[in-house]
Amino acid sequence: MNGQYPSALLGKAVDEFAKLPGVGRKTALRLVLHLLRQDTATVEALGHAIITLKREVKYCKVCHNISDTDICRICSNPGRDHSAVCVVENVQDVMAVEATQQFTGLYHVLGGVISPMDGVGPSDLQIDSLVDRVNAGGIKEVILALSTTMEGDTTNFYIYRKLENSGVKLSVIARGVSIGDELEYTDEVTLGRSIVNRTPFNGTI
Amino acid sequence: MNGQYPSALLGKAVDEFAKLPGVGRKTALRLVLHLLRQDTATVEALGHAIITLKREVKYCKVCHNISDTDICRICSNPGRDHSAVCVVENVQDVMAVEATQQFTGLYHVLGGVISPMDGVGPSDLQIDSLVDRVNAGGIKEVILALSTTMEGDTTNFYIYRKLENSGVKLSVIARGVSIGDELEYTDEVTLGRSIVNRTPFNGTI
Repeated sequence: MNGQYPSALLGKAVDEFAKLPGVGRKTALRLVLHLLRQDTATVEALGHAIITLKREVKYCKVCHNISDTDICRICSNPGRDHSAVCVVENVQDVMAVEATQQFTGLYHVLGGVISPMDGVGPSDLQIDSLVDRVNAGGIKEVILALSTTMEGDTTNFYIYRKLENSGVKLSVIARGVSIGDELEYTDEVTLGRSIVNRTPFNGTI
Repeated sequence: MNGQYPSALLGKAVDEFAKLPGVGRKTALRLVLHLLRQDTATVEALGHAIITLKREVKYCKVCHNISDTDICRICSNPGRDHSAVCVVENVQDVMAVEATQQFTGLYHVLGGVISPMDGVGPSDLQIDSLVDRVNAGGIKEVILALSTTMEGDTTNFYIYRKLENSGVKLSVIARGVSIGDELEYTDEVTLGRSIVNRTPFNGTI
């Protein structure tokens, strides 16, 4: 199915959809033809949601998370612990930590991790603003919750060097055997780390 | 990752994307966050392409294919054979036949096949308009190029009954062993059909 599109408008819409990650031309055509079968209100809702999002979305001036307001819901919530800041890579990671309901502090969204291979250096990330935030006072603990990859570890170390003299407590999320995993199939680095970082056991996990 | 979206605009865009077929909420979020990283022009191009397509696209008054004009490019092309009409299910099938470059006639897009299970009856399809088109004269051959499924066969038979007294030549696309397939792995119905409908061989396929 490599024929020319029967309509220039159709071709244009397929072109635009095919620019999305993981969407090839065949999928794009399928999505566009699906939209054509929907009523106008549904289709316009999608089009307007895309345009409005890009035009009106803001980034929180404190934590750099996506927000509808200058200061996001989490940073402006007086019920949260403003002395603890969890450093994450992106918006999805904020949502993942929030979903655990185990953290009541604030976040700091870096926008990525240091990755020389991808041309991402410290100045491309929200690291200076994290240091400023810590220096402004009021923060007692910074929790590093980055991916457990080479790039995540590099970023952890870079932030550690920037904050080691700030007097703030620095911690990193625990690495160990995933819940539900069998030891036999756990890689040796993870298993070794889980033994070194063993935690006191009093009959309940 | 089941957390609440940090922004209502983001949540709205994810909701709209997640309505597309084969797009779950996780994929929708990934697509939306990808769009947020693109420049405004790219994002608005997608939004406007969707809205414009739905508002302005037409269906050819002759063959019912998608078109930018009242009569599509193919139907209005004097270089094509206006005496042969290929009946297909949908737009993708027009593109698939066009891509073969083996057909120079016109098309008739049914908009589906008869499928009582899905509640699609003859009146939901462009069958009456096909009969009108044949009765209007000028058409010598109608080629049925529907899916080789129970529904496709039912639709073929329904059209046959509608056109059998019209004097038009009716044909159906050949069914047989796919090119590149090995006989051993061809299902027996297809192989049987390919033997019954064998074609004269003069040294070249």
